[in-house]
Amino acid sequence: MITLIHYPLSVPSRLVRLVLAECEIVPQLQEEAAWERRPEFLIVNPAGTLPVLVEDDAPPVCGIWAVSEYLDETRGFALGDRRLLPSSAAQRAEVRRLTEWFSMRFDDEVTGYLVEEKVTKRERARRGGNGSPDSSALRAARSNIRTHLAYIEHLLGARNWLAGERMSYADLAAAAALSVADYLGEVPWSEAEEAKNWYMRMKSRPGFRPLLADQIRTVRPPEHYALLDF
Amino acid sequence: MITLIHYPLSVPSRLVRLVLAECEIVPQLQEEAAWERRPEFLIVNPAGTLPVLVEDDAPPVCGIWAVSEYLDETRGFALGDRRLLPSSAAQRAEVRRLTEWFSMRFDDEVTGYLVEEKVTKRERARRGGNGSPDSSALRAARSNIRTHLAYIEHLLGARNWLAGERMSYADLAAAAALSVADYLGEVPWSEAEEAKNWYMRMKSRPGFRPLLADQIRTVRPPEHYALLDF
Repeated sequence: MITLIHYPLSVPSRLVRLVLAECEIVPQLQEEAAWERRPEFLIVNPAGTLPVLVEDDAPPVCGIWAVSEYLDETRGFALGDRRLLPSSAAQRAEVRRLTEWFSMRFDDEVTGYLVEEKVTKRERARRGGNGSPDSSALRAARSNIRTHLAYIEHLLGARNWLAGERMSYADLAAAAALSVADYLGEVPWSEAEEAKNWYMRMKSRPGFRPLLADQIRTVRPPEHYALLDF
Repeated sequence: MITLIHYPLSVPSRLVRLVLAECEIVPQLQEEAAWERRPEFLIVNPAGTLPVLVEDDAPPVCGIWAVSEYLDETRGFALGDRRLLPSSAAQRAEVRRLTEWFSMRFDDEVTGYLVEEKVTKRERARRGGNGSPDSSALRAARSNIRTHLAYIEHLLGARNWLAGERMSYADLAAAAALSVADYLGEVPWSEAEEAKNWYMRMKSRPGFRPLLADQIRTVRPPEHYALLDF
């Protein structure tokens, strides 16, 4: 049995849920608001980051780098030609570059700000903290996401999928990232037609359904969020 | 021929130099001040991050995740029982967790601030920019490094090396991280005896020598920096 400690609007958590779905593994999900830094969670992952994957009685696998590679090492071979890391070292390097890009950098530059300002602060406000969003952080996120969309469009100009001729971790990472921003109504789709078409392909994968059904208490997604054709 | 695009005080760059030395590969080094975001460099790595490894005519391998895995995939087997990623998936996960910790998190929390305030700003000041260090950033770095040292001591309490019974990427990453802070005179060694002993072991590896000989123009390291016994 695999348990995944995750948060619904965490990009690397969503990436791993998509990977597990491609491997046809249904994990037991355990939600963690990582920013609360609960002592019990820090015992499991002292870095306090998500996701954390626990398989049976093995030690927890912590962080997106370790989890992605662990799943490829233990499940990749069985996927045959649907393996999410390609077979050549050079192609694998390209997939990893983009997986780091979308699961870490996009999160630093876009979704990190959006989730903090639109979600985490509201959670804190319910407990008497300061809930007013910082408009300069939101402005930065809105400017940065345009750069990322342009980069996706640039990649799709030369390739069927982000890292090459087959779907890979890179596509799942970028789709996970955009899905979090889209939940918060922050993807300017009208400016990025190629990216939108690619995202519709990603959204139609069976593994995407549970993500599109997720709702968090304090923020409702826009109507188009769960539509496959939008 | 392998070319490594690096910066002398970049933690992930130093990690890869140490890995290459363990593989007995002498790379051609090409220094890049990544914060300048030179257009020619952004063509090689659009993320603008270091290190970038280029082997012969293959596409560049960008970022610490991709480079570490690339070197294990192409050179790890030849290292035999000195391989820097262990053989079991669970142990590999532990090495990757700690490699991410020291090459990314330590850099975010400690060396990123130190290099920005003590090095990059001076470089900018030479060109007429603002060169005064932000004392709150330095305070944060100095507080954070104590937490990291305590964590290293905690790990060494139960293990010979940071991730287990053999030297791995985790040790090279932590040593790379500490060596950058040490160059800037910012490691409170007197508070961390076990960590100091372990770091002396790391420093005595042949691959460490070129790092200890590196000097940057604007800042000289303290005297103990290059001493194997300090």
